[in-house]
Amino acid sequence: MNRVYNFSAGPSTLPIRVLEKAADELTNYKNTGMSVMEMSHRSDDFKILLEETKSLVKELLDISDEYEILFLQGGATTQFSMVPLNIMNKYKKASIVHTGIWTKKAYDEAKKYGDVEIIASSEDRNFNYIPKIQKSDFNKDIDYVHICVNNTIYGTRYKPSNIPETANVPLVADMSSNILSEVYDMSKFDLVFAGAQKNMGPAGMCLVIIKKNLIGNVREQTPIMLDYKIHSINNSSYNTPPCYNIYISKLVYEWLKSNGGVEEMQKMNYEKSNLLYDHIYSSELFYALASKEDRSIMNVVFTTGDAQLDLDFISFAEKSGLVNLKGHKSIGGLRASIYNAMELNGVKKLIECMKKFETNKY
Amino acid sequence: MNRVYNFSAGPSTLPIRVLEKAADELTNYKNTGMSVMEMSHRSDDFKILLEETKSLVKELLDISDEYEILFLQGGATTQFSMVPLNIMNKYKKASIVHTGIWTKKAYDEAKKYGDVEIIASSEDRNFNYIPKIQKSDFNKDIDYVHICVNNTIYGTRYKPSNIPETANVPLVADMSSNILSEVYDMSKFDLVFAGAQKNMGPAGMCLVIIKKNLIGNVREQTPIMLDYKIHSINNSSYNTPPCYNIYISKLVYEWLKSNGGVEEMQKMNYEKSNLLYDHIYSSELFYALASKEDRSIMNVVFTTGDAQLDLDFISFAEKSGLVNLKGHKSIGGLRASIYNAMELNGVKKLIECMKKFETNKY
Repeated sequence: MNRVYNFSAGPSTLPIRVLEKAADELTNYKNTGMSVMEMSHRSDDFKILLEETKSLVKELLDISDEYEILFLQGGATTQFSMVPLNIMNKYKKASIVHTGIWTKKAYDEAKKYGDVEIIASSEDRNFNYIPKIQKSDFNKDIDYVHICVNNTIYGTRYKPSNIPETANVPLVADMSSNILSEVYDMSKFDLVFAGAQKNMGPAGMCLVIIKKNLIGNVREQTPIMLDYKIHSINNSSYNTPPCYNIYISKLVYEWLKSNGGVEEMQKMNYEKSNLLYDHIYSSELFYALASKEDRSIMNVVFTTGDAQLDLDFISFAEKSGLVNLKGHKSIGGLRASIYNAMELNGVKKLIECMKKFETNKY
Repeated sequence: MNRVYNFSAGPSTLPIRVLEKAADELTNYKNTGMSVMEMSHRSDDFKILLEETKSLVKELLDISDEYEILFLQGGATTQFSMVPLNIMNKYKKASIVHTGIWTKKAYDEAKKYGDVEIIASSEDRNFNYIPKIQKSDFNKDIDYVHICVNNTIYGTRYKPSNIPETANVPLVADMSSNILSEVYDMSKFDLVFAGAQKNMGPAGMCLVIIKKNLIGNVREQTPIMLDYKIHSINNSSYNTPPCYNIYISKLVYEWLKSNGGVEEMQKMNYEKSNLLYDHIYSSELFYALASKEDRSIMNVVFTTGDAQLDLDFISFAEKSGLVNLKGHKSIGGLRASIYNAMELNGVKKLIECMKKFETNKY
């Protein structure tokens, strides 16, 4: 069997060139005589690799020197705890804009360490939109506001033009599922985190971009691995970092750069998602679940409205090598995750397949 | 350049067959049309892979059903916090046998959450031996005793016959650097953890083997990712696990099994380490730092006693493709880490090289 088109929400498809390069270098990285997997994190070779990876992140996302770039373990879920433990330290208060399961998890963790208010929510319409908030909504006596920029399950996102203005309150953004997909003004955020396993590489690494002035006030009794300062002063190498995961992410960043960077990705992602949404909007069988205004360009969530028919479509698509189109178990239906590495051709094949299915069945 | 003999203490050399198989499967795992890196952790393919990996661990280490097998993120350092947060819950007391930097780190973390006593230490001789303890040394009103079974920095280890009898007190063992190297009676331990990056696979995964009756009493306000129960009830998939790291470790377990399991590894490791120690003991230039009685079979720590001469030897050996022989910065000197994947031939080449150096220089 050849490669499939993999629409998984995460871990997800990676660029074939990245995988091929990784395979080529797997037993001997750059004539070191060893794999990156076997390389001491204290070696010069790995230190160079790490510095280059950091530089690529800064360059691709246009991050200023005000921020620290960290590569941590534990995924975004660990960040749900790490954020309040590190920055909910003055007022012991935070606000969350509630847009689904991921903000609920962040809320539950933050609640362990202080008062957390949900200042807006889209739960009234099963999270199919992004609630509006105003600058004036921010109580100034809070330590931070948390948002999830792209919601994989419901297929919604904050557009770059829609990132809330939070006055002097630090803005924390979970960008796990749309980092590097579209040009955001990163200076609007004070702390961004993103699990690797969508747009960056294999699961097991979490990218953290944090304003340096937020580091260094961790709550007492915090486990040492959950203190940003420890990772910052040790350049992500206090303990052995997930070296190979970092290396694959570097290959992805290089691939991204050689393909025109985030601007070019954005162009491609608009093209892919427009094509797919336009087809869904024009279909008489399928309909989209997210509001048009707030729709994700990474996760296109749709359904026939009939659970059995959705399953039939999933099987039908699988026969054409289009896999992992099942929606998240909490809402069912269908979901096509079309991250940076999903080729335009994959989306075209999916649309063809939807057309065929509609013609045959409906 | 061909492959080198890599004596790094961790991350460390992996079996070439494992790396070659990983390279072969990198773009298409078992005809799934995708890499394991791209595979949803909720997919049947990954669930099977995870179950098989667990079974291999249980089989290779002869672990009974009384124990849970977990694959976590954060490395052994996260375990230094996770252990007290989860099991120091009745008396809020623990004891540690202090054998170097790793037990010091465990001590510092445990101290955050309760009273921790160092019941024995080898600090008086710069940790070059394992201190003796008796069953009667255990105060029964403590929650656990912590030991580090193999000490990479000083090259010491608890032999299988030397694991302390702790009466009814749970015994916690850090086996990061010697898991699967030698036959230990695992039923003597109540909780074992081991970072992957020595005998198992790439950094970014930590194997935890924990008695089920120790799970479920986590301290309040513990970050959710540091609760063994969450990982236990979700079969290591509460969040996205480090799937690719788990996969490589599975390939290592398979390699190990096909090579006769831990018993055969032990035989090889005795042979390799005996050869090397015998040479060092007979040399007039090099001497070993660890006591003969407690010497590690994984990390052979030695020196010429002259810092410059040690560096000269490191350069000399590098020219023959023998790399990473520098001792840990805290004690200097030389260290040859000869984990399971280090071939006998690598040790023979090292001895040859030491002989040549001694003849030429001394």
